[in-house]
Amino acid sequence: MVNAADETAGDQESYVVGVDFGTLSGRAVVVRVRDGAELASAEHVYTHAVLDRELPDGTRLAPDWALQVPSDYVDVLRAAVPEALAAAGVPPEQVIGIGTDFTACTVLPVLADGTPLCELPDLTDRPHAYVKLWRHHAAQGQADRINALAAERKEPWLQRYGGKISSEWEFAKALQLLEEDPEVYRRTERWVEAADWIVWQLCGTYVRNACTAGYKGQYQDGSYPSRDYLEALNPAFADFVTEKLEHPIGALGAKAGQLTAEAAAWTGLPEGIAVCVGNVDAHVTAPAAGAVHPGQMVAIMGTSTCHVMSSDQQGVVPGMCGVVDGGILPGLWGYEAGQSGVGDIFGWFVRTGFPADYAEQAAALGRNAHEHLTALAAGQKVGEHGLIALDWHSGNRSVLVDHDLSGVIVGQTLSTRPEDVYRALLEATAFGTRTIIEAFETSGVPVDELIIAGGLTKNALLMQIYADVTRRPLGVIGSAQGPALGAAMHAAVAAGAYADIQAAARSMGKADRGVYQPDAERAAAYDRLYAEYRELHDYFGRGTNDVMHRLRRLRAEASA
Amino acid sequence: MVNAADETAGDQESYVVGVDFGTLSGRAVVVRVRDGAELASAEHVYTHAVLDRELPDGTRLAPDWALQVPSDYVDVLRAAVPEALAAAGVPPEQVIGIGTDFTACTVLPVLADGTPLCELPDLTDRPHAYVKLWRHHAAQGQADRINALAAERKEPWLQRYGGKISSEWEFAKALQLLEEDPEVYRRTERWVEAADWIVWQLCGTYVRNACTAGYKGQYQDGSYPSRDYLEALNPAFADFVTEKLEHPIGALGAKAGQLTAEAAAWTGLPEGIAVCVGNVDAHVTAPAAGAVHPGQMVAIMGTSTCHVMSSDQQGVVPGMCGVVDGGILPGLWGYEAGQSGVGDIFGWFVRTGFPADYAEQAAALGRNAHEHLTALAAGQKVGEHGLIALDWHSGNRSVLVDHDLSGVIVGQTLSTRPEDVYRALLEATAFGTRTIIEAFETSGVPVDELIIAGGLTKNALLMQIYADVTRRPLGVIGSAQGPALGAAMHAAVAAGAYADIQAAARSMGKADRGVYQPDAERAAAYDRLYAEYRELHDYFGRGTNDVMHRLRRLRAEASA
Repeated sequence: MVNAADETAGDQESYVVGVDFGTLSGRAVVVRVRDGAELASAEHVYTHAVLDRELPDGTRLAPDWALQVPSDYVDVLRAAVPEALAAAGVPPEQVIGIGTDFTACTVLPVLADGTPLCELPDLTDRPHAYVKLWRHHAAQGQADRINALAAERKEPWLQRYGGKISSEWEFAKALQLLEEDPEVYRRTERWVEAADWIVWQLCGTYVRNACTAGYKGQYQDGSYPSRDYLEALNPAFADFVTEKLEHPIGALGAKAGQLTAEAAAWTGLPEGIAVCVGNVDAHVTAPAAGAVHPGQMVAIMGTSTCHVMSSDQQGVVPGMCGVVDGGILPGLWGYEAGQSGVGDIFGWFVRTGFPADYAEQAAALGRNAHEHLTALAAGQKVGEHGLIALDWHSGNRSVLVDHDLSGVIVGQTLSTRPEDVYRALLEATAFGTRTIIEAFETSGVPVDELIIAGGLTKNALLMQIYADVTRRPLGVIGSAQGPALGAAMHAAVAAGAYADIQAAARSMGKADRGVYQPDAERAAAYDRLYAEYRELHDYFGRGTNDVMHRLRRLRAEASA
Repeated sequence: MVNAADETAGDQESYVVGVDFGTLSGRAVVVRVRDGAELASAEHVYTHAVLDRELPDGTRLAPDWALQVPSDYVDVLRAAVPEALAAAGVPPEQVIGIGTDFTACTVLPVLADGTPLCELPDLTDRPHAYVKLWRHHAAQGQADRINALAAERKEPWLQRYGGKISSEWEFAKALQLLEEDPEVYRRTERWVEAADWIVWQLCGTYVRNACTAGYKGQYQDGSYPSRDYLEALNPAFADFVTEKLEHPIGALGAKAGQLTAEAAAWTGLPEGIAVCVGNVDAHVTAPAAGAVHPGQMVAIMGTSTCHVMSSDQQGVVPGMCGVVDGGILPGLWGYEAGQSGVGDIFGWFVRTGFPADYAEQAAALGRNAHEHLTALAAGQKVGEHGLIALDWHSGNRSVLVDHDLSGVIVGQTLSTRPEDVYRALLEATAFGTRTIIEAFETSGVPVDELIIAGGLTKNALLMQIYADVTRRPLGVIGSAQGPALGAAMHAAVAAGAYADIQAAARSMGKADRGVYQPDAERAAAYDRLYAEYRELHDYFGRGTNDVMHRLRRLRAEASA
């Protein structure tokens, strides 16, 4: 472990680089190994962004498709890493490792040498040859069959995913590939997570990371879904695992290999430094926020919220996205849950319900719409607006796992104002998080503390509402680049600077603990509102009144 | 009956004047007796508008109070009538009668000679000495006791009001007067509807009209609530009917008296012409819209909707405002029902949910917000927006009679747009009207046709939605001054130009019948949405989930 006593010893410092591959861009950050100080960062926007209407050559895509171009990821290595390095003013030879994190499940078909099929000249016009982004939602039919058959056969892995796997994951997307473009499927030699493909580009070695293998690849207790089961899904799918998926798995924070000469040339980093096993944006954020103990739940709050938590308890939590051994921290059960709409709902409200006179007033005060509504709502007492909402405008991931649910608001009167509705929506997402926490605890997996990461941490009213609603102290991550910092910390472990990620987290992780404390009086009032939320939650979400599904069917018929 | 064959016979024409006393102004219209042609109209705005914060001398009023100043009404006679007459170019001597209609229950305390108590020098600072406007809502405590005691004692009149009387009505307001200002109560020699007081000013004779006596004064089958019952309410209230209320009742369209010299001087009309018995704005509109047959329901749609209909069937309709013998047309049972928020809800939405970019687009197209949202929503198929709403933002008058209910919207997603919500709100009010119609029919009172009056008739999309949702042909009144025209028609009857209001309606009433016809396909789709509405209606409105009342309590506690 590097030990530098002061700034004058800077020339003896060690550094690591973390690269966070998001949905529209990649961000590189240069981090000091000793204390996690972030010296500089740089962003590179993907040239092709998300292909959701057509391929680069104009080939049309069907609705719900979302593809990416793998060379865009390499461009991040070429552009953002050298730029961050230069901005940090760090001598490249003092960088001892590089780590990455990625969106997931973002997956692509490649040859045995890692060449993406979309780069083969005869396949550039084939949609299925491209990267399927996490939010490619065109494999719902396959996911439905995967779930129905698994439930029917009582496949043992199903309960590890709260009873339902997502259309976003590796098997659903692969089955769609097989059934819609058998030739591309046949030519697929490896079905690779982008998280692992980028590591492969860096060190020339394909290592499958334990996180995506477990959460997105249904790898549980040392095996994948059985050949027998896959054959029952589709006879041509029987050997999918053995032929295209199965591969040695690396623990998170392990060294996948050494930086190749080619990758050293792209990045400006020294050849031969440690390249860490791949990881996922949400999961890598947990140690960046210092959450390495059982019961510390990290909520990464942005357009949606992802909840990750490690525990020494293994439980079956209804509606969780998954529980994976070593899925976040080696040696602990890693849990993931989520809310599919959070910041997205606030954004939708501001886009569609923020009146012109409010916009003028906000402009005069130098506030954006969110700041203005938050300021107007902040003075209210709990319950003063008379409203209760369900936060399902983008469906419900945990605990109901039903994306055909939709939003509800109850209690509007002729005196209801935009800030009232806005606050009710903030609160609804907090009730959604509390529902998830209670599902964990009811399943024997304690949740002691919440640490929040992501863009929504800047809304202090929202943070206080979460503390009050969940009756838990709320910490806030100390970095605006949580995922990239987490990736860099894993690089430090892979480089041997720390014995394990827990040790790295103690020195490099950053969170202000207990920034928001629950207020007893507000918490008591929120208990009453939460009881209303739960009653409506079960009424609309568990089939007592299936109106949301009927409205959706009627909408589909009317739009047909 | 006057008979003039053509315009050249103009000098032999007869005319009548109708005066409509609204909430903020009075409107006079000059109408040709022969065919109902409206020659001219004029409006006079009340100087004191509505006193809801303080008296003219600055005396503060409590919340929920709403008072008026009776001399403002006389000013309408002095200003608007001569102005309309002049604009019409009609020789005053050809005017044969004057009729009026008023908001109700709008009620005031007077001496035996009709002098308002608020005009007595020692009472000008006493709120209870003024006119209590229909929307004075500070007598809810009294109304609650009136209802509870009547239910307990099984008072026979209670079912004629759907099981509940309103805090707006004569007894509740009088009981509040007694209990809060006993001296003013003691000095009250008559408790008079403004509808009758204005007639008294015109002809010097106090005649109580059958409409307000029945709908607002609980006069049923020849008697008022009993002395015994009133004594049980409050011993000092025992003789309220005999001492202050009871008075000869005039049928609608009957002659109350002849225009006095003083009123002739105010109005410029000939002394001695017929002055018609008073009437109510909504009820007088029915014959103006040509609705004189059983089963023709007139909906006067503005900020709220009032439904009036005559029937030869007597029924107990749950949640109706009342059923009164001769309450709309002599010889038939007159029914009244209502929706407390209609245009008010659309107005609230536009005020609080119309985004700046929509406002810009609307301005560029030369549309107001309502026109713009309507145009955007008009192209949708039924159910395309995926929403269902409850139209209770201002509570529910019929059929639930619960003003502590509130609005609901179900089905919002991240792609829901303002025009989607707007259309869902339009539809919700149509579902509310259908609920009322079904309550009538279930109670054995058939509703065959809808005729719409009021400001909302100008929204063709709304009208078509009502036709489709109710599966009934929709007529539209042919006058923008429905109430004033109706008042003028009653004047023609009082003057003897027509044998009865039915005959007057045949010649003078104006409606385009069946302008909107239900479309079978849309009606079928609306049946499905209406089923959702009714399920939510009963869930939220009939106590299955009493969340709205609990939210209101929490709001009251938080605001306290």
